[in-house]
Amino acid sequence: MSRPMNRRQDNHKISRELFVITYGALVAQLCKDYEKDEDVNKYLDRMGYDIGIRLVEDFLARSAVRKCRSYSETVDVIAQVAFKMYLGVTPSVSCSNTTENEFFLILDKNPLVDFVEELPAGRCSLCYCNLLCGVIRGALEMVHLAAEVTFVQDRLKGDDVTEIGIIFSKKVEDKKHKRKK
Amino acid sequence: MSRPMNRRQDNHKISRELFVITYGALVAQLCKDYEKDEDVNKYLDRMGYDIGIRLVEDFLARSAVRKCRSYSETVDVIAQVAFKMYLGVTPSVSCSNTTENEFFLILDKNPLVDFVEELPAGRCSLCYCNLLCGVIRGALEMVHLAAEVTFVQDRLKGDDVTEIGIIFSKKVEDKKHKRKK
Repeated sequence: MSRPMNRRQDNHKISRELFVITYGALVAQLCKDYEKDEDVNKYLDRMGYDIGIRLVEDFLARSAVRKCRSYSETVDVIAQVAFKMYLGVTPSVSCSNTTENEFFLILDKNPLVDFVEELPAGRCSLCYCNLLCGVIRGALEMVHLAAEVTFVQDRLKGDDVTEIGIIFSKKVEDKKHKRKK
Repeated sequence: MSRPMNRRQDNHKISRELFVITYGALVAQLCKDYEKDEDVNKYLDRMGYDIGIRLVEDFLARSAVRKCRSYSETVDVIAQVAFKMYLGVTPSVSCSNTTENEFFLILDKNPLVDFVEELPAGRCSLCYCNLLCGVIRGALEMVHLAAEVTFVQDRLKGDDVTEIGIIFSKKVEDKKHKRKK
């Protein structure tokens, strides 16, 4: 179905508004399709994952970043290069005081909610932007880093900021290895 | 849930690649969810419709186009202003030789299929970009123009070009009036 990304030659631009409104329509439609917020969140995460595993190819080709040597460096690349490249914003990064594998992306501005003031009525557990978590998770997995990615704070839920938590777990390679045993 | 569009102040850009890959993931997911191509096509059209009825507000605010006085003028605005603004391409327009209300948008380049070479296996009736038809239909309805919008040719199906047909029907206002009688 798909063709290599480097074959494209065109430079036409797709508008931000179209993306944001399309994303909104997707979430709205999923809210019609699934009664439970949890199911919508899962669907978005899974779709994001599928996007992430494809997007990483484009990212590596266009960003020309070097191989990261630490979790911290990886998260900095996500924030400063990937978010900037794809969403036009740069989240700030913080790390956990207690563990070495836990990081947070703090979004001062979240482009995906540009036209959204609050969560739809009765959907207070909805993670509106959960697609992003899936994208990060999928992209990380493609560079052999397994991680749990979730929203820990969300302005749409009344929090002061929007914050994505990334907890790196064992490497995919390790897991595969273990399964074989 | 939503807030007026003119309140946004940011100018961050969302990448074309993210949109195209997200759209691809949406279609792929729908193909998993629905066995029949027809159901996927309907879903995309309906989602597009929801996008169109919202996008038109943004379009009218940003484009500052005047009220169109003919179907032909309307289609020219869709091709030259709306497609350019949102997808970065300008389709050529042709009209039917036999009826005055039938027009065709011919897309030399279709940004939504940038990374797509062919339809997924076994989905030969899929209208991959059917979202676009829904968007046009929804947007037109918001300016009181009812239309049937469908793909009449599609490069993904082996046609030479990708072509969207727009058949204007009776005005929404007329329909409403008739229903009341």
